Amino acid sequence: MMIVDDVENGSLGPYQDRPRTFPNMRSKPFTPLIFRILMGINVRILVILLLLGFGYVFYIGASTSPIIVFVFSVCIISFLLSIYLTKWVLSKDEGPPEMAQISEAIRDGAEGFFRTQYGTISKMAFLLALVILGIYLFRSTTPQQESSGIGRVTSAYITVAAFLLGALCSGVAGYVGMWVSVRANVRVSSAARRSAREALQVAVRAGGFSALVVVGMAVIGIAILYATFYVWLGVDSPGSMKVTDLPLLLVGYGFGASFVALFAQLGGGIYTKAADVGADLVGKVEQGIPEDDPRNPAVIADLVGDNVGDCAARGADLFESIAAEIISAMILGGTMAQRCKIEDPSGFILFPLVVHSFDLVISSIGILSIRSTRDSSVKAPIEDPMAILQKGYSVTIVLAVLTFGGSTRWLLYTEQAPSAWLNFALCGLVGIITAYVFVWITKYYTDYKHDPVRTLALSSSTGHGTNIIAGVSLGLESTALPVLVISVSIISAFWLGHTSGLVDETGSPNGGLFGTAVATMGMLSTAAYILTMDMFGPIADNAGGIVEMSQQPESVREITDVLDAVGNTTKATTKGFAIGSAALASFLLFSAYMDEVASFANESFKQVDIAIPEVFVGGLLGSMLIFLFSAWACSAVGRTAQEVVKEVRRQFIERPGIMDYKEKPDYGRCVAIVASASLREMIKPGALAIISPIVVGFLFRVLGHYTGHPLLGAKVVAAMLMFATVSGILMALFLNTAGGAWDNAKKFIETGALGGKGSDSHKAAITGDTVGDPFKDTAGPSLHVLIKMLATITLVMAPVFL
Amino acid sequence: MMIVDDVENGSLGPYQDRPRTFPNMRSKPFTPLIFRILMGINVRILVILLLLGFGYVFYIGASTSPIIVFVFSVCIISFLLSIYLTKWVLSKDEGPPEMAQISEAIRDGAEGFFRTQYGTISKMAFLLALVILGIYLFRSTTPQQESSGIGRVTSAYITVAAFLLGALCSGVAGYVGMWVSVRANVRVSSAARRSAREALQVAVRAGGFSALVVVGMAVIGIAILYATFYVWLGVDSPGSMKVTDLPLLLVGYGFGASFVALFAQLGGGIYTKAADVGADLVGKVEQGIPEDDPRNPAVIADLVGDNVGDCAARGADLFESIAAEIISAMILGGTMAQRCKIEDPSGFILFPLVVHSFDLVISSIGILSIRSTRDSSVKAPIEDPMAILQKGYSVTIVLAVLTFGGSTRWLLYTEQAPSAWLNFALCGLVGIITAYVFVWITKYYTDYKHDPVRTLALSSSTGHGTNIIAGVSLGLESTALPVLVISVSIISAFWLGHTSGLVDETGSPNGGLFGTAVATMGMLSTAAYILTMDMFGPIADNAGGIVEMSQQPESVREITDVLDAVGNTTKATTKGFAIGSAALASFLLFSAYMDEVASFANESFKQVDIAIPEVFVGGLLGSMLIFLFSAWACSAVGRTAQEVVKEVRRQFIERPGIMDYKEKPDYGRCVAIVASASLREMIKPGALAIISPIVVGFLFRVLGHYTGHPLLGAKVVAAMLMFATVSGILMALFLNTAGGAWDNAKKFIETGALGGKGSDSHKAAITGDTVGDPFKDTAGPSLHVLIKMLATITLVMAPVFL
Repeated sequence: MMIVDDVENGSLGPYQDRPRTFPNMRSKPFTPLIFRILMGINVRILVILLLLGFGYVFYIGASTSPIIVFVFSVCIISFLLSIYLTKWVLSKDEGPPEMAQISEAIRDGAEGFFRTQYGTISKMAFLLALVILGIYLFRSTTPQQESSGIGRVTSAYITVAAFLLGALCSGVAGYVGMWVSVRANVRVSSAARRSAREALQVAVRAGGFSALVVVGMAVIGIAILYATFYVWLGVDSPGSMKVTDLPLLLVGYGFGASFVALFAQLGGGIYTKAADVGADLVGKVEQGIPEDDPRNPAVIADLVGDNVGDCAARGADLFESIAAEIISAMILGGTMAQRCKIEDPSGFILFPLVVHSFDLVISSIGILSIRSTRDSSVKAPIEDPMAILQKGYSVTIVLAVLTFGGSTRWLLYTEQAPSAWLNFALCGLVGIITAYVFVWITKYYTDYKHDPVRTLALSSSTGHGTNIIAGVSLGLESTALPVLVISVSIISAFWLGHTSGLVDETGSPNGGLFGTAVATMGMLSTAAYILTMDMFGPIADNAGGIVEMSQQPESVREITDVLDAVGNTTKATTKGFAIGSAALASFLLFSAYMDEVASFANESFKQVDIAIPEVFVGGLLGSMLIFLFSAWACSAVGRTAQEVVKEVRRQFIERPGIMDYKEKPDYGRCVAIVASASLREMIKPGALAIISPIVVGFLFRVLGHYTGHPLLGAKVVAAMLMFATVSGILMALFLNTAGGAWDNAKKFIETGALGGKGSDSHKAAITGDTVGDPFKDTAGPSLHVLIKMLATITLVMAPVFL
Repeated sequence: MMIVDDVENGSLGPYQDRPRTFPNMRSKPFTPLIFRILMGINVRILVILLLLGFGYVFYIGASTSPIIVFVFSVCIISFLLSIYLTKWVLSKDEGPPEMAQISEAIRDGAEGFFRTQYGTISKMAFLLALVILGIYLFRSTTPQQESSGIGRVTSAYITVAAFLLGALCSGVAGYVGMWVSVRANVRVSSAARRSAREALQVAVRAGGFSALVVVGMAVIGIAILYATFYVWLGVDSPGSMKVTDLPLLLVGYGFGASFVALFAQLGGGIYTKAADVGADLVGKVEQGIPEDDPRNPAVIADLVGDNVGDCAARGADLFESIAAEIISAMILGGTMAQRCKIEDPSGFILFPLVVHSFDLVISSIGILSIRSTRDSSVKAPIEDPMAILQKGYSVTIVLAVLTFGGSTRWLLYTEQAPSAWLNFALCGLVGIITAYVFVWITKYYTDYKHDPVRTLALSSSTGHGTNIIAGVSLGLESTALPVLVISVSIISAFWLGHTSGLVDETGSPNGGLFGTAVATMGMLSTAAYILTMDMFGPIADNAGGIVEMSQQPESVREITDVLDAVGNTTKATTKGFAIGSAALASFLLFSAYMDEVASFANESFKQVDIAIPEVFVGGLLGSMLIFLFSAWACSAVGRTAQEVVKEVRRQFIERPGIMDYKEKPDYGRCVAIVASASLREMIKPGALAIISPIVVGFLFRVLGHYTGHPLLGAKVVAAMLMFATVSGILMALFLNTAGGAWDNAKKFIETGALGGKGSDSHKAAITGDTVGDPFKDTAGPSLHVLIKMLATITLVMAPVFL
């Protein structure tokens, strides 16, 4: 509730009589505690501390594996590069004072919300850490752990520490995403006054900065944990733990990351869309004023939302995607290496870290390949920014294929199966192709150059109702192709791995699952570049908002409009990419879960048999969880938006001068309403996602105990997880695509088709766009996180079900 | 396409200059071929034929089991009762000529569409029968079949004959539903001029007639097939088939029923909602004229739609529900009796037939308990018709509990486990309670007396967008409670059956699945009464339309409005009931499928392991099938509605006199457009549902063959079926509830809340209602059928996957 008062006090009152300036919502300068401590330290001491840190990192790296040293080096170089990118972006001017004022208002709103939101999230994280600690202190240890000397207490602390580190890193990833976007937005606006190309470059580099930090942090965090555990537990020395079991200790990191990402995505998603829907409903539909018009009291809240919803939340989201995918692939690599008795398993275990190190390198090249034209002083005609971004993507993809092939040869070559690396390289290629096809399919269904969106736009001409029916059908239909693609890639990667020649003691092939893991890595091998394109969207959107609010000339608006439209497409396509990789990653985590259960229960757990009634019920509950979660996420937006609508209507009635620019709207009040409502609303769906698998697992464990059915809890949870994953993929595809298509159908009509702006078709299309907002930016992306969080929560909480 | 020309020719031209009368769309009197043949025969010969038929039926019944004789007798008595009900309804007057004219136009439109639709369906059914014949002639026979002397050819003909009989009966069930409703509607309108109670009674008795015929036909059809096979194949005599294997031969009947029901529901659902949405969009939203106003050119098409969509389709739907449920329960009863070596298994096998015979008896009592008040000449004040219907339902439920208990004691008592029948009686009680709770939950979410719909109505006050978001959330949320209820009842019924004391040779309990089967029967033990309430809805709706169109005084309209509102609620609640029973029935059919595969493949098939990538992919494809099917069903309505909108707009422009009653709208053209479009649109989703499981099963069978994975096709199809069932249940619940809630939120506003009729809230609520129409009356009910059809198609097509 703090933020409400802060923001209100700062914004109400003294500014109302100064039209055409913008509220100072700054309460007090806010810098996170850790930065303040760092800044308080003498520079020389800081440098020494930093060097000591590097020294430690490289020491443990060198004691673990040369591969780790390589990973560390690449990550540190990327961090240096990202510092260069920030400096470059911050060196750009902030434009005229009216722009800077708006930007400050946005920054303060965003940072205020971020502070309160992450305050709440960190409290919940600590509480959950205590619960995990309690569970692990009272769990039974596995035979392996006992033999390797990891006691119950050590294991408890390891898990909790990993969880907290994961949560912290996820939070920092979110903060970094937001930090740069609230600074870059105004610089993009300002650059747009000079040239389109420069504006594009500023936005891309700002996005690139956070992409490099997010991916780099995921990689280095896992690498440090791995190396620390390796050295500390004396892994691979006689009598202690085997290196192939090590990755299972990292699961807590993934869960921590997912936990924070879920709430970040929910809170941010509700914030951004409630503000957007509320602003549009009154502004565009009722009053007929354009988007981001300064007369709309909800406009600042809307712009703040882009930063906390799209930038911060997507940073945390992609961070946990990569972390979950790396950890699950490491677990599977370890398991396979152990089963196949590979002499040096570290190549198989550390492969994902190397892939993402290369990801950092090649994406940096892709980002830097987008340069200013030589003669930036002359206003060049607007090029198609999509083509420029696509060119960068093509560069990155070509490099990804090359480096991926090299990495498989380097790390996955084993004398037992000399051609296995080639099969795995092909798996990687399957993944890269899948990513490409996914992006293409999403584009087909959401871009107005293609039939589906045009048909949708046409259906707007017969009214609101037919527009919604057509949009829902389009979204439901759009699930088909991606599912076919995922199916083909799972099966082909599995069979490529299966036939790789890696066999276990009994001679049966064992590389199938690792094959799908490698395909997932292939899919994510250009993650940093994809994230850059994703971050580009909200920054461009915000820049457009600032340009509109500060009432710049038409030519500047034109530039930011083009960038904004491109941002919409890249946002939609990266969502397709995110859900595709989530589908693959969940399938891996599911296998890891079964291994974990088998190792705890010390009996084989290879099957989840849905013909058992309880297991079928588990599946039913899993799918239901997805529906209920989506319901609560959407209704949260609806409810909050209604509050915004009422507030905006109230302001228009009480201050009739707003429409003639004679009175200033009270932006701060809308910001405060949205902030407090979205914090309140994020709790219910988030708690549902975390509590329900634990409760279901525990209940069926008890039921199984009384009915003489061993492992019932674990089996039911497995089915729940699997059905939730399948339903979650479909639901997320439906929500994301329908939302994107509605948005672009509206944009298509705004280009002048079917009557253009202001026509009845346009009104119907706006209704569709409004409905699509919570679909594509709140519920849909939250489902990506939910799917993976369910997988990691079951891994961490497995002792409860057994 | 015939219908288009017929209807057009009949309606265009000569009637346009005679305002206030209605088009004669009658082309030529239509009576199905079978009736014409029957009517051509001398009455005495007919009676003799009928007696011969009865004689045959009772002869084979007596040769089979006294239980069959009991079933035959009850069914024949119900048929006599249903003839009495028809005579009673038809003896009522048709009101003034303007009413009769409208009614005739509706009847002709409905019968014309029915004829063309069933023409198309029957062609497809014959084609499919040939395919099945081909597959069965080239399949391998099971060891059991060989030992019992049923050769490949016999088995092929048996399956095809059962399929065709099922298809025929399903078609007749649909026809009967429509036949009575197009005759009862005008009689209800006419009765409404006298008293509300009489109108209610006419509608209930008309609904009761088709309910008794539908349920009776399902029961007697299966009983005749069973007895015929029993006598013909010499079952239970040495060296031939065992009676416990007999029910598997009936599967074709269920598939035939589902096949026809699917297309009937799709075609009818698209017809009714395209007409409704189209009429509403132009009439209510654009022109602001009331529903069913005679000036709306699409109004007759809308009224025709109620009959072909709700009455005919729902008749076929419930028919196949009951057939599928009886057959699956018979299969499970047989399997269990065999495993447990029960001496006289016929009680366990024939139990479902007896339950539904009692259903006929008790529902008749419930129907007849709704009587006229003594003094019908005085206009009594309008009572709450819902209360009257509920009272009848209570009577039926109490009787159901009693007769169900009696039946279990009669048929399920065995000396091996003397208290087993009590456990099964409790299973039945679980089912009855589940049905009751389901009805209650649906009512909670769709009735405007409760919070959810009121919140939805409130969200209309902030615009179209928030109304849709709130409705979607409400629908998604409403899946949670039913899933919990289903989960509890599956598990508790399974455990009641499991602990019944019935054990197999090895001493392990074996009654679990039969327990869930008995619960399903309990749930359906009042099916005929439920169907009566369901049929009541569209008849009342039609009566209201006729009253409105013939411009009766306000007092008459009031009566039909109340009946219509009640009909909406009963329609929504019976949908909850239908999906609940579909969920349970599918779980049973799934088990039957696994038994069948095991028996064909002659190896154990007890597990469907979703940890195998191909099986997981099967699940993914199954869920996707549901999404794609729903998409196509909804978009079919959207597209057809757009055609209607354009046609209506065209008529308003070309005939400006329509709005002042000076010119007659061209009703026939709308009827023709909707009819031809819905026939065209039903093919795509229907074909998808039938072809995709066959293709997936066959492809994975081939893949399994090449990768050395036996039974892969069967396993993948099993997963597909299971995931499709779960997703289908959730999707249908979502679609039905959201649609019902939107409808009633609109009705709530029309009572004067939130600004009442004509306000902006009302307009937003109408948009919601429009979106809900295809959800609740096209896609949702089609999913009920689809779920069960997938189960029966996999049973019949199993040889393709093996």
